[in-house]
Amino acid sequence: MRFMTTPDNAPEASAEPTGVAAQDWATASVDPQYRAAVVDLLGALAYGELAAFERLAEDAKLAPTLADKAELAKMASAEFHHFEQIRDRLTEIGVGPTEAMEPFVAAYDSFHKQTAPSDWLEGLVKAYVGDSIASDFYREVAARLDTDTRGLVLAVLDDTGHASFAVEKVRAAIEAEPRVGGRLALWARRLMGEALSQSQRVVAERDALSTMLVGGVADGFDLAEVGRMFSRITEAHTKRMAALGLAA
Amino acid sequence: MRFMTTPDNAPEASAEPTGVAAQDWATASVDPQYRAAVVDLLGALAYGELAAFERLAEDAKLAPTLADKAELAKMASAEFHHFEQIRDRLTEIGVGPTEAMEPFVAAYDSFHKQTAPSDWLEGLVKAYVGDSIASDFYREVAARLDTDTRGLVLAVLDDTGHASFAVEKVRAAIEAEPRVGGRLALWARRLMGEALSQSQRVVAERDALSTMLVGGVADGFDLAEVGRMFSRITEAHTKRMAALGLAA
Repeated sequence: MRFMTTPDNAPEASAEPTGVAAQDWATASVDPQYRAAVVDLLGALAYGELAAFERLAEDAKLAPTLADKAELAKMASAEFHHFEQIRDRLTEIGVGPTEAMEPFVAAYDSFHKQTAPSDWLEGLVKAYVGDSIASDFYREVAARLDTDTRGLVLAVLDDTGHASFAVEKVRAAIEAEPRVGGRLALWARRLMGEALSQSQRVVAERDALSTMLVGGVADGFDLAEVGRMFSRITEAHTKRMAALGLAA
Repeated sequence: MRFMTTPDNAPEASAEPTGVAAQDWATASVDPQYRAAVVDLLGALAYGELAAFERLAEDAKLAPTLADKAELAKMASAEFHHFEQIRDRLTEIGVGPTEAMEPFVAAYDSFHKQTAPSDWLEGLVKAYVGDSIASDFYREVAARLDTDTRGLVLAVLDDTGHASFAVEKVRAAIEAEPRVGGRLALWARRLMGEALSQSQRVVAERDALSTMLVGGVADGFDLAEVGRMFSRITEAHTKRMAALGLAA
């Protein structure tokens, strides 16, 4: 399978797949360490979608109009359907979804607890920023996955409509009242900081996942490479915020 | 279209349709009062689904396990898809969904505000009771609708899985700790009381809808007939609560 979209910040994604990336799940999963890494990845992704569902549904309450409320509810529902796909895949490969998700509950819940939006615009910026950086992260990882898992991961990263809806509403709000931009820029920085700190916690705790991230070398955990990935993600975030009219 | 299910408490539903109930939307909607009543009904149903989505998503937070959380999220998502169907139908007949929903926002919001569950079991009982009485109400009304609208209303009342999931969990909890039954019985009574009081408020405020409920007589609003409908709904509720092991 070819990549449908190639993010700017994942240069290796355009190279011809080799190693695991050229294998299917049946072949690749013979390696127990690879298998464990994929189970971790799908568990993290599944709980991320379920948590996103909950937060978007919660943010729908802050919507200024019924049409906006329906739009957020639609996004939440889309996240839930992504969750279902990953959960079904976990079951298919013989893993209990709950068991796979458990190790990541604390990190996601801490992130959402530390970043509860106080109004509608903060909720929109959070949906946009959170979705974009999660998407960047999983696309980086997808480049290292077997063809079957890669197909699933890219499918659930398909745009749920967050981006264009949020960008349009936030831009309009800043145009109407430029001071709003300063507050939202601060908010976006806080979101990014919290996301990085929770991600680093997960990477430090989950050996199999971290090893896969740095290229599948079983006994060499190259923290520098993970650091470079975080830099690429941060850089992409900064560009997006600038495009939104927010100094990141 | 024939009824797929006939509730015990709607004896007229088994009779051969006559009048509006034998017409399609194009024919029936020529009468402006009938048209207004259907717009009200769809508006109320649409906002009810959207509000149910929000409450179920909120209750998912109280879930004791990740599997339970996913189950509630699934129900919430099903309600959202029902909302979409009704909203699309409103648009199709040339009515702004927001405009149609607005008159019912206060009643639903008051209901949910007055009945915020304090734990997982209260949330389940609320989902079950709320879904059942809404379903009873709309099935009573469906008997008086044109064939097209009736088809849509019955389709969105299709079981979203609330009933069996909630009944199973609540029964198990009462078996494990019988005292829980007393508390939940009180809770169910409070839910029913609040639902009735909000419904009566809506019936009193919306003339076109009320007139349709009592048989389509344009200038005779028979409060007694609406009262009898409420009695039938209350009776069905009492039976369901007894089956659940709760004295209603």
